[in-house]
Amino acid sequence: MISFTPEQVQAIRRSREKVARLHSELTRYNLVAWTAGNVSERVPGTQHFVIKPSGVDYDDLTPDNMILCDLDGNVIPGSAGSDRSPSSDTAAHAYVYRAMPHVGGVVHTHSTYATAWAARREPIPCVITGMADEFGGEIPVGPFAIIGDESIGRGIVQTLEGHRSRAVLMANHGVFTIGKDARDAVKAAVMCEDVARTVHIARQGGDLVPIEPHYIDALFDRYQNVYGQTPQGGMA
Amino acid sequence: MISFTPEQVQAIRRSREKVARLHSELTRYNLVAWTAGNVSERVPGTQHFVIKPSGVDYDDLTPDNMILCDLDGNVIPGSAGSDRSPSSDTAAHAYVYRAMPHVGGVVHTHSTYATAWAARREPIPCVITGMADEFGGEIPVGPFAIIGDESIGRGIVQTLEGHRSRAVLMANHGVFTIGKDARDAVKAAVMCEDVARTVHIARQGGDLVPIEPHYIDALFDRYQNVYGQTPQGGMA
Amino acid sequence: MISFTPEQVQAIRRSREKVARLHSELTRYNLVAWTAGNVSERVPGTQHFVIKPSGVDYDDLTPDNMILCDLDGNVIPGSAGSDRSPSSDTAAHAYVYRAMPHVGGVVHTHSTYATAWAARREPIPCVITGMADEFGGEIPVGPFAIIGDESIGRGIVQTLEGHRSRAVLMANHGVFTIGKDARDAVKAAVMCEDVARTVHIARQGGDLVPIEPHYIDALFDRYQNVYGQTPQGGMA
Amino acid sequence: MISFTPEQVQAIRRSREKVARLHSELTRYNLVAWTAGNVSERVPGTQHFVIKPSGVDYDDLTPDNMILCDLDGNVIPGSAGSDRSPSSDTAAHAYVYRAMPHVGGVVHTHSTYATAWAARREPIPCVITGMADEFGGEIPVGPFAIIGDESIGRGIVQTLEGHRSRAVLMANHGVFTIGKDARDAVKAAVMCEDVARTVHIARQGGDLVPIEPHYIDALFDRYQNVYGQTPQGGMA
Repeated sequence: MISFTPEQVQAIRRSREKVARLHSELTRYNLVAWTAGNVSERVPGTQHFVIKPSGVDYDDLTPDNMILCDLDGNVIPGSAGSDRSPSSDTAAHAYVYRAMPHVGGVVHTHSTYATAWAARREPIPCVITGMADEFGGEIPVGPFAIIGDESIGRGIVQTLEGHRSRAVLMANHGVFTIGKDARDAVKAAVMCEDVARTVHIARQGGDLVPIEPHYIDALFDRYQNVYGQTPQGGMA
Repeated sequence: MISFTPEQVQAIRRSREKVARLHSELTRYNLVAWTAGNVSERVPGTQHFVIKPSGVDYDDLTPDNMILCDLDGNVIPGSAGSDRSPSSDTAAHAYVYRAMPHVGGVVHTHSTYATAWAARREPIPCVITGMADEFGGEIPVGPFAIIGDESIGRGIVQTLEGHRSRAVLMANHGVFTIGKDARDAVKAAVMCEDVARTVHIARQGGDLVPIEPHYIDALFDRYQNVYGQTPQGGMA
Repeated sequence: MISFTPEQVQAIRRSREKVARLHSELTRYNLVAWTAGNVSERVPGTQHFVIKPSGVDYDDLTPDNMILCDLDGNVIPGSAGSDRSPSSDTAAHAYVYRAMPHVGGVVHTHSTYATAWAARREPIPCVITGMADEFGGEIPVGPFAIIGDESIGRGIVQTLEGHRSRAVLMANHGVFTIGKDARDAVKAAVMCEDVARTVHIARQGGDLVPIEPHYIDALFDRYQNVYGQTPQGGMA
Repeated sequence: MISFTPEQVQAIRRSREKVARLHSELTRYNLVAWTAGNVSERVPGTQHFVIKPSGVDYDDLTPDNMILCDLDGNVIPGSAGSDRSPSSDTAAHAYVYRAMPHVGGVVHTHSTYATAWAARREPIPCVITGMADEFGGEIPVGPFAIIGDESIGRGIVQTLEGHRSRAVLMANHGVFTIGKDARDAVKAAVMCEDVARTVHIARQGGDLVPIEPHYIDALFDRYQNVYGQTPQGGMA
């Protein structure tokens, strides 16, 4: 039977609270409908992560019904919430945590505009400076993959490893984002939908003017290193 | 004069509370304007259903002003709320309950994107996995029919009997959805608008990539049987 | 100096309360930005109407800062709120009340989709049954007219007199709606934007299927006479 | 070391309160995502302005964490909030205050529709009367410029000096607006997005009907001098 140190117990508690609370950002920004979408966080100092239960109302999410899993996606028996099933996307989150040790948070949504690009399997071109800041270039498209094996997780990892983007549009499906913690991944999900919407609307009105690559590089570099109250450091 | 057993009285009370409360999901997801739209539920263990009154503000809906009807759509005299008229769509709901014994809830809205597809009499193609999960394929279009006889109810039933979809776009009108109970039908109404919007926006941006039918089948099967905290069982 | 009977004083109070409160429906349905838009009501049993002050925040509207005007649009000296200027659209509201004695409420907004049709000077075609119910056909376009004389009021009246519609799109400007009281006019403003949006989106996706005129007549007739808790009677 | 008179201290306090509170209008109107966007105000009777800190949640903005800067954009040491970094757009705000003495407020957003026009480097044509009122003509496009020197500030000033518009679309970036105080600049940001959205949607539906220039002049003149509770006076 698994046991945790007092420090680990506290870290699990903090991740449960953060993950439960961060789900409200998905509803605030209208990224999810009904019970779709999910946030997880790797618990610092452990080989575990915390994730949303499956099919539970957003209004009913609490720290105690978040579900604690190991990095193979197995629910830890006897932990709070372990009487419920974890998100049906748990295997994909687990795959990402195993393959990308620098990732501390994962988010999945079917947000409208991002999913619209995904339904055409078309990457979002980088034509606004806020997108260069946040994603360092286009937001790429991952392969078509369905639930049931490791293909979604592998598709996320293989696509993001070649990009500065923290968001990937999974073909005909939706968005996965990664971050240094759950909050950072939620931010990426919010900003991904924001740029997906703005660039869609921009292109409906006529031809887009691209940003030259060296400007994109300069914007990404500044934003990752200077913006905000402390240097953030990039994911990449 | 009709009389109910104590168990039936309790079941009616529960359906009144559920139906009154579920209307707030229609406003939360912006599926309705002013007093349009309605939710009903078949009361388990009875030959009756509970439905919204006609033309009443969403803010003013309570369990006691929901209206109890028999399966011919007649208001039960003397029951709570029976001094008001039921939704003008009551005959359509009643027709569905008579014709489809496995249906426990019905919802009707004029939600924007679904009604836009309906104004072109065009089914929504299944190009995103969340739509395959929820509807098992395209969302079909029913016939043009106006209030006044059984043609709306018959159109709903004839269209849905040939489909896995729990939603039907009634031509030039709006959406009807069915479910195993009122909550399930409300979920279908929320998800129908979500996919109607996403697929509309996707197609505005260029050509859609279809999902192969065997993948749609696999997604629908998994979702109906595995998703959530307990096996749900499909409607079909 | 003008004096009111106790009954008139009470009627003015009721209209102030209704008009102040109904402005919150304009913000609830996102029909207005900043201080744009206005609602007025003819006070029953008087030759006066109550209207929003000019350029005041929606959060700050109260019964006591609504402004009482005569049917020429003059503020009644000494009445509550009379230290402020009434809406800059007051002359248009006054013109409508003088010319159309059956009108008890007027609303003006620049709601997004209705104003988009107005910017093309294109009427909204009647392709959904809810629009047939509410407006009895297309929503017509009025002339281009600017503030400064009676041309806006006259344009509203001349356009609506030939139509069943309670809404008119003033060219390159926005929407005016009328009703039997302020609430009815607000409902028309809400439903006008709803159909303007739905029909716009429908047409973006391809060709619309029109509704045959005899069906439109049947729908309008039923809705005006049967819908809701009591017969409403049409405006026309 | 800098010292302020009691009157200046009070004026700084009032600007802190106004600027903190006005940020909630950016979220109310959905002009910003996550921590993007910022409001500043020149403190009357000083050579300073107050601006939002960088990368702080909108929910966490208070008068005491607004940041006081001189007109070169330097944070005033020891002032409230001076332990944090000011908005990364501070240099642009400072440039505007130095170059345009009549400007008392500056706002920056990446609001969706305005940024969509900016991504095409296309000015918004003046086809609705509310836009003529507020902006006196088209909303112009400024040059492409990235953070790091004075190019953004200079681009804003050079573009707005030739226009009646209080809003400028910075190429591939977003919107900057100016006003006689922070509230006036926020109003311009709200109305800029409102007209950007309405004109975008209008043009998606077909050809726009322009407003003749002499009407635009008449509308702008009236609105700047008559609208609201007191004469406002134009910016220009």
